[in-house]
Amino acid sequence: MVKVGLIGLGTVGLGVARLLSERREMLARRLGRQLVLKRAAEIDPERRSKAPLAPGQLTARDKDILEDPDIDIVVELIGGTDVARDLVLSAISRGKHVVTANKALLALHGNEILAAAAQKGVEVAFEAAVCGGVPLILALRQGLAANRIQEMLGILNGTCNYILTQMSQSGMSYDQALAEAQAQGFAEADPTLDLEGIDTAHKLAILVSLAYATPLNLDPIAVSGISNLDPLDLQLAWEFGYAMKLLAITRNDGSLIEARVHPTLIPKDHMLANVSGAFNAVYLTGDAVGPILLYGQGAGMMPTASAVVSDLLDLARNLTRGANRRVPPLGSETALETPRVIKPLDEVVTNYYIRFAALDRPGVLSQISGILGNHNISIAAVIQKGREVKGAVPIVMITHEAKEANARQALREIDLLPVVSPPAVFYRIEDPHLHAAQI
Amino acid sequence: MVKVGLIGLGTVGLGVARLLSERREMLARRLGRQLVLKRAAEIDPERRSKAPLAPGQLTARDKDILEDPDIDIVVELIGGTDVARDLVLSAISRGKHVVTANKALLALHGNEILAAAAQKGVEVAFEAAVCGGVPLILALRQGLAANRIQEMLGILNGTCNYILTQMSQSGMSYDQALAEAQAQGFAEADPTLDLEGIDTAHKLAILVSLAYATPLNLDPIAVSGISNLDPLDLQLAWEFGYAMKLLAITRNDGSLIEARVHPTLIPKDHMLANVSGAFNAVYLTGDAVGPILLYGQGAGMMPTASAVVSDLLDLARNLTRGANRRVPPLGSETALETPRVIKPLDEVVTNYYIRFAALDRPGVLSQISGILGNHNISIAAVIQKGREVKGAVPIVMITHEAKEANARQALREIDLLPVVSPPAVFYRIEDPHLHAAQI
Repeated sequence: MVKVGLIGLGTVGLGVARLLSERREMLARRLGRQLVLKRAAEIDPERRSKAPLAPGQLTARDKDILEDPDIDIVVELIGGTDVARDLVLSAISRGKHVVTANKALLALHGNEILAAAAQKGVEVAFEAAVCGGVPLILALRQGLAANRIQEMLGILNGTCNYILTQMSQSGMSYDQALAEAQAQGFAEADPTLDLEGIDTAHKLAILVSLAYATPLNLDPIAVSGISNLDPLDLQLAWEFGYAMKLLAITRNDGSLIEARVHPTLIPKDHMLANVSGAFNAVYLTGDAVGPILLYGQGAGMMPTASAVVSDLLDLARNLTRGANRRVPPLGSETALETPRVIKPLDEVVTNYYIRFAALDRPGVLSQISGILGNHNISIAAVIQKGREVKGAVPIVMITHEAKEANARQALREIDLLPVVSPPAVFYRIEDPHLHAAQI
Repeated sequence: MVKVGLIGLGTVGLGVARLLSERREMLARRLGRQLVLKRAAEIDPERRSKAPLAPGQLTARDKDILEDPDIDIVVELIGGTDVARDLVLSAISRGKHVVTANKALLALHGNEILAAAAQKGVEVAFEAAVCGGVPLILALRQGLAANRIQEMLGILNGTCNYILTQMSQSGMSYDQALAEAQAQGFAEADPTLDLEGIDTAHKLAILVSLAYATPLNLDPIAVSGISNLDPLDLQLAWEFGYAMKLLAITRNDGSLIEARVHPTLIPKDHMLANVSGAFNAVYLTGDAVGPILLYGQGAGMMPTASAVVSDLLDLARNLTRGANRRVPPLGSETALETPRVIKPLDEVVTNYYIRFAALDRPGVLSQISGILGNHNISIAAVIQKGREVKGAVPIVMITHEAKEANARQALREIDLLPVVSPPAVFYRIEDPHLHAAQI
């Protein structure tokens, strides 16, 4: 019998308690022995009262879990990064294995936690931290272990994807779409972490470590969110054949690793363009396996609980077979000792969508394209829309590949032109087949 | 050090030999020890000469692998079901673990092989047998182990999907599309197993066993392939909002299991409708996790080799930790002893696309819908196309849910009508949102 202690009976904690109590038999058939939720700790009495557990299984004090020598695995589901860190380190120091769904905790304190676990010889499992119930971390740690991962493009935040879907399908403004997401329960009361791309960056930090066998490192990930998006850009992008998604992007260029989070234009016929609503998906390319897509619900009670329980089964299997840490948490024995360098955003080379508001006068286009040309940026396509906004006409350009530093410098110079109403708006494009005729 | 013997140096065998020899270091970092290809057996001297192996690593005789006490894991990649069966059973009887990509072998002799492996305490791994490098079997055995699988819809054969994509995107006939597939290397010289749906059924048999923890059983799977498809039906289906795909379908209706393979209409906006060319995908629903899609290349040298090597890593991890059979081959300890009943096709309830060629006379539609009504089949939508084919006009009906036996009986009666040129053509539809107005 393997005994589990659960800390935190919020939405996901309740889901885990339900799965463990309602399907004991099925889990035992899979595992070959019982997997038992011995006790759950939760400060909030109302939450405790909702759990499908006997009074003896409930406690208000974390230490009733942490100090119980009978408990093999601790599930941390309280969220946040301070108390959760103490709690997880305390469990590890007592020789307990840990399962967590806490991406912020891993992104900020993951190296410390994984090093402590390695030293103590216990496991830390976190399938639920990225893409909810989609077995993405399992795929990276095991299923695709024969591959060098070349790139990953991920839609990792359901709230943002829901808002972008509403904006593009129903023409809603950002504020309307956010209000709708909150009404539907897809957005938190304070959705800042989601909307500013920070939650996506936490998850990307985890994926980068798994894909490239390197320590967790949030700092060098460039992040911008969706809170400033104008529905006009979604429309204009669509006219060029692109959908707008908040993507987490990581790529191995051979020596450096790219890692960035920002609204991105992808071709309408890309598998990721069809991921709508609150769904998540990761499109990755391995050098042996080629392109792979994994898609599903990235959040919510039962999808996340599904991932937590799959981790519990995995750890329980190792425990009963004496095969602790059969697979290293980051998929490679040497991951924590081999940091890879993340390429500065200024060095990234990609295609751009640039929108200017310019006065409709002769020579404007040639002035703008002249500045772009001075910075080695050539134009793949351009449209000028008839409708005026405050006396100016929107001009949209799609560029060939250019270096980020050059693109930013060119835009600074263009914004200084008297015929342009600053600032220009620009988005990066992920389109391997961008072969439009040069102008 | 874990030592591997490989039997069969065809396309996939060469890919496995390449991965094992070219990335020894990366695999060792993941595994924590060396994974070594000790020897490969292949009868064909030309194939042997192509392998990236030293002369001492090559042999023409299987028994040099099977009888080598130093070899821990045997990889069977010769294909076919007779010699392969003997070979795999012989490896098992000698206490060797087995990795295979052979879906036909598993579908036909899987229970015998898995029972022998259980008795001997060795592993049989087969990630590469379904969807190539996509870690689908890993997901079913482990990642989704907390779920009851409610249904799976799979595009499991790249050849068929390539042909259907060509037929629908370029309006090619079946014969043209097949010739194109053969020219592109996506179809075998004798593609019967693929085109008649048999390869898909082999894979479905494996998925049913994994999803429902039941012995392998090919016999009750109803199968029809794509070799009789008329491009007209792809066009007409498209006008109703559907794409045509060869789907493997399995579903748990609470007591019985559905398992069938046939050309199927799915809504254009379904994730599976966007799977084009030689790609594979599985769309499955777990009761906790909700809908999940896994997508990638289902065949080919390196994608398949990627899956074989991930199995080798998994087995090597168990071997070095003394944790053999950590996860049962079918994901549940009791799978081989708990057969589930497959629902006869006649009992299946679904929606139908029916095309008749009828003379353009008053009362024809009412005669046809009268017969359908007599068999409890109501019509959701109907179109009559202007163009005549041999004096008759095609009429297409989309039905509400009906029982297969009723649909077939009604079609037999309709075919006897003097105004209808038999036989009618019908296809099943997978559309959970079929809510068109009844006529």
